[in-house]
Amino acid sequence: MTGAPELTFRPATEADLPDIVAMLADDPLGATRESPDDLAPYAAALKRLTEDPHQHVVVAVRAERVVGTLQLTMVPGLSRKGATRSIIEGVRIHADERGSGLGTRLIEWAVERSRQEGCALVQLTSDATRTDAHRFYERLGFTASHVGFKLQL
Amino acid sequence: MTGAPELTFRPATEADLPDIVAMLADDPLGATRESPDDLAPYAAALKRLTEDPHQHVVVAVRAERVVGTLQLTMVPGLSRKGATRSIIEGVRIHADERGSGLGTRLIEWAVERSRQEGCALVQLTSDATRTDAHRFYERLGFTASHVGFKLQL
Repeated sequence: MTGAPELTFRPATEADLPDIVAMLADDPLGATRESPDDLAPYAAALKRLTEDPHQHVVVAVRAERVVGTLQLTMVPGLSRKGATRSIIEGVRIHADERGSGLGTRLIEWAVERSRQEGCALVQLTSDATRTDAHRFYERLGFTASHVGFKLQL
Repeated sequence: MTGAPELTFRPATEADLPDIVAMLADDPLGATRESPDDLAPYAAALKRLTEDPHQHVVVAVRAERVVGTLQLTMVPGLSRKGATRSIIEGVRIHADERGSGLGTRLIEWAVERSRQEGCALVQLTSDATRTDAHRFYERLGFTASHVGFKLQL
């Protein structure tokens, strides 16, 4: 990507929601779960996220286009001598940017931010069907040490 | 357990920390990670948790003894139409209470509380070596659909 316009990372704003929701929906699992034609629930959620100092929803911008996003949550806890951990959710890369190294840059941003905030641990879960993603996280130093359980309400 | 004293659930306080930390340490994985002789880091963490409206650290009490604990975190998000999910961490049952059904009661409490707060999803990760715990969560309706990745900082 030598010569490609620089990437910047900044907090997501309401104006970014069409681009973010389009990325959430452009995914084998997300396609059935999102509503790009109705942004109201996303705007309400972004307001909750922006008001919470433990939440960081970030967008990656290249040449004034939103090309990636993730959510980083800081979770204080008692275990491990009162350690704070961070949780990465909602990682999405625009289709045009896949293979560009942007995923690595986004995760590295999240890890560095977690370190700055004093986290002892960064964690995430990835759907068992996303085997490419699993290799990606292992290359970045993550260990697939846990089983992730979900219960839909 | 017919005839056993009633269980109650209430928010954890600083006075509960010796009992909570003893339970965190009385565990094959926790034994090397906790410091029951130095409660100061736990007290600082509990203060952060108590001040955060998205955090619930609960203790289960039977006959005035703390016999179980878990942490429930509410995490707003953009994906799934702006759904809030909850995350269960730090589930511990006193050795004397294992097999009593307390684990089920604690998780049911967390699920019910998540429902009351409007969560769409409850999730947790369990170390891959804790196979008994995996069967327990599956019996409670959770699906082992994800791989949990961790990166120590």
